[in-house]
Amino acid sequence: MAHWEVLLRSRAIETQCYVVAAAQFGKHNSKRVSYGHSMVIDPWGAVIAQCSDGVDVCFAEINLNMIKKIRDEMPIMRHRRPDLYGFLQSYNKGNIDDTYHYQFGQHSIGCGQVFYKTALSFAFVNIKPVLPAILHFLELQTYVLVSSLRPAKRFSDLTSAEVADLSLCVQRVCRAVEAHFKGTSLTIAVQDGPDSGQTVEHVHFHILPRKPADIPNNDDVYRELATHDQDIQAINRRSEEEMNREAAELRHYFL
Amino acid sequence: MAHWEVLLRSRAIETQCYVVAAAQFGKHNSKRVSYGHSMVIDPWGAVIAQCSDGVDVCFAEINLNMIKKIRDEMPIMRHRRPDLYGFLQSYNKGNIDDTYHYQFGQHSIGCGQVFYKTALSFAFVNIKPVLPAILHFLELQTYVLVSSLRPAKRFSDLTSAEVADLSLCVQRVCRAVEAHFKGTSLTIAVQDGPDSGQTVEHVHFHILPRKPADIPNNDDVYRELATHDQDIQAINRRSEEEMNREAAELRHYFL
Repeated sequence: MAHWEVLLRSRAIETQCYVVAAAQFGKHNSKRVSYGHSMVIDPWGAVIAQCSDGVDVCFAEINLNMIKKIRDEMPIMRHRRPDLYGFLQSYNKGNIDDTYHYQFGQHSIGCGQVFYKTALSFAFVNIKPVLPAILHFLELQTYVLVSSLRPAKRFSDLTSAEVADLSLCVQRVCRAVEAHFKGTSLTIAVQDGPDSGQTVEHVHFHILPRKPADIPNNDDVYRELATHDQDIQAINRRSEEEMNREAAELRHYFL
Repeated sequence: MAHWEVLLRSRAIETQCYVVAAAQFGKHNSKRVSYGHSMVIDPWGAVIAQCSDGVDVCFAEINLNMIKKIRDEMPIMRHRRPDLYGFLQSYNKGNIDDTYHYQFGQHSIGCGQVFYKTALSFAFVNIKPVLPAILHFLELQTYVLVSSLRPAKRFSDLTSAEVADLSLCVQRVCRAVEAHFKGTSLTIAVQDGPDSGQTVEHVHFHILPRKPADIPNNDDVYRELATHDQDIQAINRRSEEEMNREAAELRHYFL
């Protein structure tokens, strides 16, 4: 009982939620006894209903206006410090806004190209596939990009929360892309700054699924990645329909 | 007063620490009044000393054995779930164990080569510099590696906590390396799996500082990175003294 009430009241205060806590009672075994006292706590931390130690029922009224009022007067969610205490990961199931265009440096990425989105990052298919000419496996003809939602130029411009979110997004996209394109390895690369070949001024990871001996000269893959930025407006662009179809397939891995 | 006591008691219970909380009292301005009640709380959540609402002093005895007993009986720290709730970042100031050899796939990395270490990752200088032959700037002759402490083979083998820690480590190392080698950009690359050129079976980021027109043909940089793994045992190896000197310089960026 000592911890039960104080911890529940803290949870209600900190989350600014009603807390409805169901408890067991009685002797479970030689080592475990529990004490009942199921309770309902309002967002200010007050116990507004409580059961006794036994079979019992209690009732409380939930006041939605109170939640709103408390959150307005004390905006706790805005006080979070993910830079110090880490980032609460959201396993976002890809709620991609279908009317939105995503900013990618100076470019606009249609939502149809985007196949995964987290709190701070998004993943999209690429307008330019890797040229089939350098590939032994024709079906391996694409790579994907993962970027921060905020158009930060350099990797060092990202906040800690963005770095953590982006890299976890990259990991999930790696798994999906390797499975989807039946790869056995991945090339992951960031061109960070103009003198590394970056021309789209927006942090992005290139993720390219690889297969045994897919590229006769392994270096050629980097030539492809390095020239991507330069000629994003050039020929060899894929059609919007083609990109949207590929993105739709990749979305299945995040459902 | 409503939140003061319950939140402090929760902090004591959850952290299994004594909490000594100093409070103000009185009317500060037209909008702010505080209520005193400085208090001391034991690790079980009991208020063991408390001031009144006014100028006051209270005393409590700290029992270190009680802390140990409670932590032994209820090992809360082992119940953390960084996979769900994110990873508490530690801004580790590089407590590199000077007797330790770090595992890097099949290789052993001497502690002298390691210049930064976080809870789950480590950064070290490379035994093979980028060949000066391809560089315009002779002083730009090295790149560094950042790896997980646990010898996971693939990026997807890392836990969420390891991914977050590794990428934050990469970001800090990027800043240090760019500053130290007076770069203007960075090439960041991971060869993830054997068919991407990876032969050291241990996830690692290559970080190479770049300068304007440092490499006539930008692709050559990837040839260097791609061949690093293959001939780690070959010639062009730097001496241990040389590596240790470079690592010692880089450590300054993390003090």
